[in-house]
Amino acid sequence: MTTETITLIKSSIKSIPDYPKPGIVFRDVTSLMENAAAYKAAIQMLVEKYQNMGFTKVVGTEARGFLFGAPLALELGIGFVPVRKPGKLPRQTIGQSYQLEYGTDTLEIHTDAISQGDKVLVVDDLLATGGTIEATTQLIRQLGGEVEHAAFVINLPEIGGDARLEKLGLKVYSICEFDGH
Amino acid sequence: MTTETITLIKSSIKSIPDYPKPGIVFRDVTSLMENAAAYKAAIQMLVEKYQNMGFTKVVGTEARGFLFGAPLALELGIGFVPVRKPGKLPRQTIGQSYQLEYGTDTLEIHTDAISQGDKVLVVDDLLATGGTIEATTQLIRQLGGEVEHAAFVINLPEIGGDARLEKLGLKVYSICEFDGH
Repeated sequence: MTTETITLIKSSIKSIPDYPKPGIVFRDVTSLMENAAAYKAAIQMLVEKYQNMGFTKVVGTEARGFLFGAPLALELGIGFVPVRKPGKLPRQTIGQSYQLEYGTDTLEIHTDAISQGDKVLVVDDLLATGGTIEATTQLIRQLGGEVEHAAFVINLPEIGGDARLEKLGLKVYSICEFDGH
Repeated sequence: MTTETITLIKSSIKSIPDYPKPGIVFRDVTSLMENAAAYKAAIQMLVEKYQNMGFTKVVGTEARGFLFGAPLALELGIGFVPVRKPGKLPRQTIGQSYQLEYGTDTLEIHTDAISQGDKVLVVDDLLATGGTIEATTQLIRQLGGEVEHAAFVINLPEIGGDARLEKLGLKVYSICEFDGH
């Protein structure tokens, strides 16, 4: 994959100053999806990286993880499993809490959506603290799934989420990186 | 598209009795996405129906609408625009309230995501009352976009959402139908 492709993808991501609060520059992946060529190129990069590696499921976290995980699962020809906020999944679930800046939040997964030995690729739009992907990895492993890879469109390396996920034994990949928090 | 394909898709959708409350049978589209062949077939049916019709954008509503709208936009080679709950979109937005069983809710769209004359296909997983898609249609039209088609994986015709959307001038299509509410 060429540098031009990464430039196309990165330049399609708008930066919104002072959102959601003063001093934060928000990297807006919705502007990437509005650009059909950039969106397709991002999915294609993930397909080329992860095809033929024996994955059996893709897991994506609500809601922006759906936007990259689901198309990737379709292209890889494997099932897509959503991880959602509490009360959104109708079958039996397990939950995992994780730390926010203030307080905690919980994510849930269907207990029958992952089988013992499933080889799972975890996908999200953006890696910041890594908290949601840590919780997601714990949920999948609790159900007997193997998780060794996590893929992102954007990484914010200054926050250090990649180091946190590597401590869990994950190989972390992102299409592009941005400065700041 | 064959009857066998529709049977594959419909049979992959699990029915969860008494969810989210007693007497309701919930039609669970997550079980469709776990089935790679069924998920791919559903997207392919939508592609075959809506290709070469001159659409310029697909709009999908948070969160399950993302799971069908985004892959469809990628296959049609046009941009995907998310409609989200309040406070989730970082750029300038407009909002539209709609009626729930008890109270109201609001949906938002980026004001610059739809241009005057955009020909928009609206996609969601399930058509029940049609309230969210009515609000979504109003948002798109307020920004100058044309909306004449709404696509769903599942329709619950007893609730009458299709009649409600047809009153807005929409042509409604669903891959399969289920009895009940």
